Amino acid sequence: MNHSLRAVLESISPVDVTLSTRARAHLDDLTKPRGSLGALEDAALRLFLVAGGQTPLCVDPAVIVVAAGDHGVTRQGVSPYPQEVTTQMLANILEGGAAISVLSRLNGLSMTVVDAGCAGAALEHPRLVNLRLGPGTADLSEEPAMSVEDCQRALLCGVDMARRAVDGGARLLATGEMGIGNSTPATALFCALLGLSPAEAAGPGAGLNPAGVRHKISVVEKALRRHAAVAAAVSASGGPGDALAALAALGGYEIAVLAGVALGAASCRVPVLVDGFISTSAYAAARSLCPAVADYAFLAHASAEPGYAGVIAALGQEPLLRLHMRLGEGTGCALALPLLRAAAALFNDMATFSGARVTGDMKQPV
Amino acid sequence: MNHSLRAVLESISPVDVTLSTRARAHLDDLTKPRGSLGALEDAALRLFLVAGGQTPLCVDPAVIVVAAGDHGVTRQGVSPYPQEVTTQMLANILEGGAAISVLSRLNGLSMTVVDAGCAGAALEHPRLVNLRLGPGTADLSEEPAMSVEDCQRALLCGVDMARRAVDGGARLLATGEMGIGNSTPATALFCALLGLSPAEAAGPGAGLNPAGVRHKISVVEKALRRHAAVAAAVSASGGPGDALAALAALGGYEIAVLAGVALGAASCRVPVLVDGFISTSAYAAARSLCPAVADYAFLAHASAEPGYAGVIAALGQEPLLRLHMRLGEGTGCALALPLLRAAAALFNDMATFSGARVTGDMKQPV
Repeated sequence: MNHSLRAVLESISPVDVTLSTRARAHLDDLTKPRGSLGALEDAALRLFLVAGGQTPLCVDPAVIVVAAGDHGVTRQGVSPYPQEVTTQMLANILEGGAAISVLSRLNGLSMTVVDAGCAGAALEHPRLVNLRLGPGTADLSEEPAMSVEDCQRALLCGVDMARRAVDGGARLLATGEMGIGNSTPATALFCALLGLSPAEAAGPGAGLNPAGVRHKISVVEKALRRHAAVAAAVSASGGPGDALAALAALGGYEIAVLAGVALGAASCRVPVLVDGFISTSAYAAARSLCPAVADYAFLAHASAEPGYAGVIAALGQEPLLRLHMRLGEGTGCALALPLLRAAAALFNDMATFSGARVTGDMKQPV
Repeated sequence: MNHSLRAVLESISPVDVTLSTRARAHLDDLTKPRGSLGALEDAALRLFLVAGGQTPLCVDPAVIVVAAGDHGVTRQGVSPYPQEVTTQMLANILEGGAAISVLSRLNGLSMTVVDAGCAGAALEHPRLVNLRLGPGTADLSEEPAMSVEDCQRALLCGVDMARRAVDGGARLLATGEMGIGNSTPATALFCALLGLSPAEAAGPGAGLNPAGVRHKISVVEKALRRHAAVAAAVSASGGPGDALAALAALGGYEIAVLAGVALGAASCRVPVLVDGFISTSAYAAARSLCPAVADYAFLAHASAEPGYAGVIAALGQEPLLRLHMRLGEGTGCALALPLLRAAAALFNDMATFSGARVTGDMKQPV
């Protein structure tokens, strides 16, 4: 691991959980029965910890990094769509017609779009960041998807994008992606990093039939056999060097960039909102590189991918939304952002029993 | 049933489900895998039906009616809070400090606040509609909560509020409530209207302990015995006259007003967004009065009240959000509104395969 990446990991520290007492006392003083705002109270408490107890809580401006990449493993027939759709959808995202374009516009989320490593000719667009760290990854079922060096470059690019966003005023980062075939590297990463089996982690992705899912499982199994030493090392040590090797062997350029965004957000002590199945694999990689990232992460949306349940059980976190979506692009983040705004506004702006003329403390039933 | 109410019920017609084919074809032409927007595609399709196929889909301006009322049954000790909290919280809502005040401001939902029938002195506030149909209801465990005449007045007031809102431009109505003790009438209504048992429908409400829940079950059982003829008639006939009698015997002023809001929205062919446990009992009453109301209703949020699961199973509808909240006031509606806006925007604004340069039709996997 190079010096720059190590410095990033060392710059991330856990939140101060002793602040929970103050947050809880304030939440219990708001004019409502104790705990009656459910998941929004939990979110407000966690935002308070991320902010180090600074109020008012605020998640705006919010910036989403939407990273695209191609995947050599598509040659194994793991996706029903041809690889050129990645770049076509990237153009659609930039031109405003994709789901994430519509939702980020609607919900006031600034979008930064990145070609992390697509195959074919580069797009030229004034709002596109052309990192193009490689022409798609290598086929992870036969060789490492990326070199460790390229993977580190991708991570550091993501860190840099997050830090620039925060320098520009961002108070929340979010993650989105596009990449034909990328549920296969995501599945392989969940297996290596969280100890899931390919059969439980793999699903239809963008639309495989049952035979296609069985084939995808066999491709992931082959990849895990091919990189057995890497997978064994990360599960045994859990150390950052082994996590980096696993991400390089089994990940993708866009996944590594988004793992870097999560690391960058945490290093700036800013919350990171994590989208569905693929983005969660990037977050899982970031957590393996630096467990304290978990303190800064909010899961936006429960992917309809069947393996997602095992993933969040392993991560020990609950998503804000369950809308049976399986699109990615960051769409879950754009939809969950209003819930984090709501959590912050309730914490900041509700009347308190100590201030309002409400009898006898609804927080303490008589 | 009086002539005015009968005319309202007759003015409500089901949506034209043959329009589904057009909506589905458009959704499948949007640049995403088929069905990958999950519950938002379902919501967009239903908004299209409510709009009679008129596009663009639109849910703004959106108006929430927050109705407050008191309940004679509180004398049976079914709530941990004293009755005067209803009016105190009504003041808090008007002054901007309650959860629904904060959330409706945040999410651009206009709030109409109504004293449907609170005990004690009236509040004077420029933004309060003082219906005050009674000084709280009678104790439903011993006598009818309201007379049938008062119940009809409350329903028609709700219809009128919805229609005025639509005349003023509203494109969506939402429901919220405040009333110490009102989870008891809501529970009794679910039992009478949906055939649930008191033991499965009753829960802690705003904070009862297990002994309190057992007592609440016995109070609901007593009420259902007291009004056995009414409950038997509604479960046997399901006709509107019997539904009206059940709502009068077991409901509340704010519940009847909100049932009227749902009827009024449906009569104007405008969607109605239904909040948690109490608001859903008002919606269940509206559906018993006129089953076609179901075509216009969207459930906002899954109440944490344990009986809610049986309620939605009986209603055959799924809420948009599951945030473990149990507050009411319309908070679930204020949080779900952005999801309906998102559903409409995706339907209206996403690029289509027929228009975009995206290969080979992602909707039809190759």
